[in-house]
Amino acid sequence: MGRRMALLSRLAQPNERRIVLLVLDGVGDLRTDAQPRTALDEARTPNLDRLAARSSLGRLVPAGTGITPGSGPGHLALFGYEPTSPDVDIGRGVLEALGLGLDISPDAVVARGNFATVDGEGLLTDRRAGRLPGAEGRRICARLARRIEAAGDGVEVEIHPGEAYRFVLLFRPRAGTPALDAELADTDPQRLGVAALPVQAAAGAGEAAGRTAARIAPAVAALQAELRDEDRANTLLLRGFSKLPALPGVGELYRLRAAALAGYPLYRGVAKVCGMEIVDCGKSFGETLDRLEERWSDFDYFFLHVKGTDMAGEDGDLAAKVGTLESVDALLPRLLDLGPDVLAITGDHSTPAPMEAHSWHPVPLLLRSETCFVDECSRFTEVEAIRGALGTIPSSDLMGLLLAHSARLAKCGA
Amino acid sequence: MGRRMALLSRLAQPNERRIVLLVLDGVGDLRTDAQPRTALDEARTPNLDRLAARSSLGRLVPAGTGITPGSGPGHLALFGYEPTSPDVDIGRGVLEALGLGLDISPDAVVARGNFATVDGEGLLTDRRAGRLPGAEGRRICARLARRIEAAGDGVEVEIHPGEAYRFVLLFRPRAGTPALDAELADTDPQRLGVAALPVQAAAGAGEAAGRTAARIAPAVAALQAELRDEDRANTLLLRGFSKLPALPGVGELYRLRAAALAGYPLYRGVAKVCGMEIVDCGKSFGETLDRLEERWSDFDYFFLHVKGTDMAGEDGDLAAKVGTLESVDALLPRLLDLGPDVLAITGDHSTPAPMEAHSWHPVPLLLRSETCFVDECSRFTEVEAIRGALGTIPSSDLMGLLLAHSARLAKCGA
Repeated sequence: MGRRMALLSRLAQPNERRIVLLVLDGVGDLRTDAQPRTALDEARTPNLDRLAARSSLGRLVPAGTGITPGSGPGHLALFGYEPTSPDVDIGRGVLEALGLGLDISPDAVVARGNFATVDGEGLLTDRRAGRLPGAEGRRICARLARRIEAAGDGVEVEIHPGEAYRFVLLFRPRAGTPALDAELADTDPQRLGVAALPVQAAAGAGEAAGRTAARIAPAVAALQAELRDEDRANTLLLRGFSKLPALPGVGELYRLRAAALAGYPLYRGVAKVCGMEIVDCGKSFGETLDRLEERWSDFDYFFLHVKGTDMAGEDGDLAAKVGTLESVDALLPRLLDLGPDVLAITGDHSTPAPMEAHSWHPVPLLLRSETCFVDECSRFTEVEAIRGALGTIPSSDLMGLLLAHSARLAKCGA
Repeated sequence: MGRRMALLSRLAQPNERRIVLLVLDGVGDLRTDAQPRTALDEARTPNLDRLAARSSLGRLVPAGTGITPGSGPGHLALFGYEPTSPDVDIGRGVLEALGLGLDISPDAVVARGNFATVDGEGLLTDRRAGRLPGAEGRRICARLARRIEAAGDGVEVEIHPGEAYRFVLLFRPRAGTPALDAELADTDPQRLGVAALPVQAAAGAGEAAGRTAARIAPAVAALQAELRDEDRANTLLLRGFSKLPALPGVGELYRLRAAALAGYPLYRGVAKVCGMEIVDCGKSFGETLDRLEERWSDFDYFFLHVKGTDMAGEDGDLAAKVGTLESVDALLPRLLDLGPDVLAITGDHSTPAPMEAHSWHPVPLLLRSETCFVDECSRFTEVEAIRGALGTIPSSDLMGLLLAHSARLAKCGA
């Protein structure tokens, strides 16, 4: 645990005030020659505007200047973790599994898999098996699941289909056998014309990884053998072997009852890793607010997730991003009517429409509470946020601000 | 010593330039719905305004985003120390003793005490002895001091009355006996209906703490016995056992002759811990300036402390805060007439009137020197400071800026 987290944890006192963190995924955007105004500039958001005029604005840097975060690090930072610290790393396998909504026990090693195609000599000709359609992927996973049940390997194996040619493998030690180590190398050689690699310890890993590789390798080889008569998906490649990181939860760290209301499994999964209770909710902001209203008295920290802004940014569709923002704005009064003591609105990263991808640019932040400095910003936009009272701070500093504004932090020293 | 402090120390060169750090305690304030303008917004400060127009502005974050510092950490940061580092922690006992103006030798263990009331069975009924008036506290301290002189314990003990029911106990090893360890647990159980705890080592402390507890406990028990026939103050509770932190002084670190001109003992005490020479001065800014003028040639770094802004903030009295600022402004020409080469005006933290307490909000900073970037800020206010050339930086960075602007720092690398 870093020094700041330990300090916040030591100073944190429980109380009944309600904190709401509304994450508009990928909300930050760019003004460029070709796109002179951002989605926040363009959107008609009368409710957000009124709120901004009574709030502090500022900007969050998700993972360090110039660093583009994935969704995992982006959210971990918002929840107060140092997102580029190795302790906090959520591996690719685990992240893929969380995205599928799988329940991962702490003893499981998880890998992300691709179905792939090899030629008669076992050399890779297509690392994605011709971008196999989802129905085919699900059929093949079901076939492998039957094979797994029939086998009696030294580990328990589970397979779950993902999108198209992707799937997830979970390995667990059988009862009474030693723990598994996740420091394993990818079996995907990342190029064609060579064979898939065997399961083996990662370079520099300890002996425990070697022992785990020896236990897992026969199960993987058996699955590969089962695929041999498939047309395109006649082998599999594994990447990102990982375990759940053992993070101290926000609830215990800061003496909060924390809930996550997110429509997509990946965000629910990351929140769960951070110790939040998952409140089932649909994908629309309206459904999220339904659940929020129902559960308002059960928690004192609510993470709400809106995905549409990011999807629009990834599609390069500024109009869709504007539309999402306007629909959030229209429902904002329902959130405000609940009377949150502290409300923060921001993103986990920018997804500028001109880039059609996540980026490293700072993300605008709005913070409203009784103790916020009402600065001179009159709208929630990237440009206004530059001159906001909160300044430009790391995303991982936000949790401390939310605690401070909810009067949960004792004074440091006398 | 942190990396930055070590680097500054290595680069520091002595010269004759004069640095003045004027601390307006708790100067930062809030704009809120109910208080739309801060004291700095409201105050008529023509001299500060003229100075601001020729200066760089910026903001200091005392102890990290969202962290509210006490006076100790707030000032330590301004003097260049990392205020939340455990090495730098000034314990409650030591801080209380510094606030009483006591001289604490490095070998002393200091505790803050409360007189308290127990019932016939020795169970606490009032942890503050009915908020005993100061005259009573002083009488009882004098009584205990006589008891201490008569005793022949393994440690030297001193008692000093504080405000009302509070006092300070100092323990020193007798000549030729081993050093004392301050890792002792509070004897105050922090609740009623139970007995005061004995003096014992803190959880996780080493063996030296256990040996110290065994040496101190009889002296404390003797004092408790002496109190038995008192009406209300029939026992005592101890908290915050601590020693002076062993900080490298600013004089040796940065090759400065540093002086502190502060009217209140706590600030003199903290400055002394940081190796500054204490110049006696009264509580008013005028008296502070009298001493500054007299001693101008004796030092090259002057810490001046103004308490009124913080007191007004703690009282929630915006008008009093405005009044203090206007009275400082009226005397500012006397300070400017001395021709300081570098002048910084800031606070150790914010004490917003609406909060009636210290807070975590950034504090405005004004820095004037020949090498300051004259930015576009025209007044010394919180809002103007947001767009100042100095940006928003940790308070602990200020010392390096003062050294740089006084041409004391050699180039780093070729």
